[in-house]
Amino acid sequence: MHMQRIRVVRDALDANNTIARANRDDFDRADVRVVNLMSAPGAGKTTLLERTLARFDDASAESSAPRLGVIEGDVQGNFDAQRLAEFHVPIVQINTDGGFGGECHLDANMVRSALPSMPLDAIDLLMIENVGNLVCPAEFKVGEDHRVMITAVTEGEDKPLKYPLMFRACELVIVNKIDLLPHLDIDLNRLLANIDAAHPGVRCMLMSARTGEGLDAWCAWLHAAARRHAAIQ
Amino acid sequence: MHMQRIRVVRDALDANNTIARANRDDFDRADVRVVNLMSAPGAGKTTLLERTLARFDDASAESSAPRLGVIEGDVQGNFDAQRLAEFHVPIVQINTDGGFGGECHLDANMVRSALPSMPLDAIDLLMIENVGNLVCPAEFKVGEDHRVMITAVTEGEDKPLKYPLMFRACELVIVNKIDLLPHLDIDLNRLLANIDAAHPGVRCMLMSARTGEGLDAWCAWLHAAARRHAAIQ
Repeated sequence: MHMQRIRVVRDALDANNTIARANRDDFDRADVRVVNLMSAPGAGKTTLLERTLARFDDASAESSAPRLGVIEGDVQGNFDAQRLAEFHVPIVQINTDGGFGGECHLDANMVRSALPSMPLDAIDLLMIENVGNLVCPAEFKVGEDHRVMITAVTEGEDKPLKYPLMFRACELVIVNKIDLLPHLDIDLNRLLANIDAAHPGVRCMLMSARTGEGLDAWCAWLHAAARRHAAIQ
Repeated sequence: MHMQRIRVVRDALDANNTIARANRDDFDRADVRVVNLMSAPGAGKTTLLERTLARFDDASAESSAPRLGVIEGDVQGNFDAQRLAEFHVPIVQINTDGGFGGECHLDANMVRSALPSMPLDAIDLLMIENVGNLVCPAEFKVGEDHRVMITAVTEGEDKPLKYPLMFRACELVIVNKIDLLPHLDIDLNRLLANIDAAHPGVRCMLMSARTGEGLDAWCAWLHAAARRHAAIQ
């Protein structure tokens, strides 16, 4: 009985990984790099994307600016997609409650279902905003090149210790809402130490998506991700 | 194939509800009322419990003060239980990654596994702090009398629209971190209107667990929950 259960779980994960590889093949064929952006609800994923798209819209005269596309993952509704609709980028909304059982995360098959609506040949970087959740999204690859998470300082210092898999699964941790630090009892150094304890050596980026502090470093990181890809061609 | 899948899901939910009823029978036999406390990670569940336990500790000379017990649900670790250990209440930690597959929510069977360690005859109110998640905890009854959620104003105005099931599943919504309102771009009235749109008429309680604002109303609500129970005896 115990063995049976383990086998079913492994089969399910293998199916996800198989589809994630198929997604990745499609992204590679179209020369698109993919960022899977994850966080708890309300940590600032959409606000950061708003600021990023505004910055890249301004920079669109530069030939070096990567062309972005966005996949929005939500249980239901398209509120985040609406917030981003003013920018000149393709946006596809995935709702996990429409045939996917109201799942608390995106998986490879959901992302695959969105690809026919995303003009991969017209973009360089695909940003996938996952469902707000610090547990399950980390367990499902969707075909991404990079996993990035946002932790807001308002969530407290202990989140890396309580949700270590998410922090370990990401190569970049954006520490957001630092404009609120003067009004919180949180010790930023302790938060950074806890992040490093969960994922030793992981890169952290201090950010206020609200004020724009840290946005330069983030946009430079995205530029580099796109350039790395161009160099591979 | 499709029918088969639906049947499996219904069986799983039925099993949970069966165990939830067994939990509820045990709670009723011991004259214990149970509150299932849910929120996104970092919304302030543990801080509110700290303040609540401190208040009820001070009031322990009063014979009317309900005796509390706490079940802490986390994917791993016992950081929250440690924060509450200074108070004179029984605390049991459930880790969902110890035999439960790292689940992102508590279910009735996990709570049942904690009951032998909880002296139900010595308490009046059992507070169950669920795993921090705005999706799945709302789908699993654990045998509770009351479902309460916390939404922090730092999470933004749109959470009731994006995670409506959680807001609908609860009879009380605690709007926490209101001390930060002067430093945020959020419109509190819009947040309250969105909560009411998701769950018309639901009771909301403004709170700053940090400053103590709103704690009187919350403790009065808990007292009433315990008194309602005593009246039933």
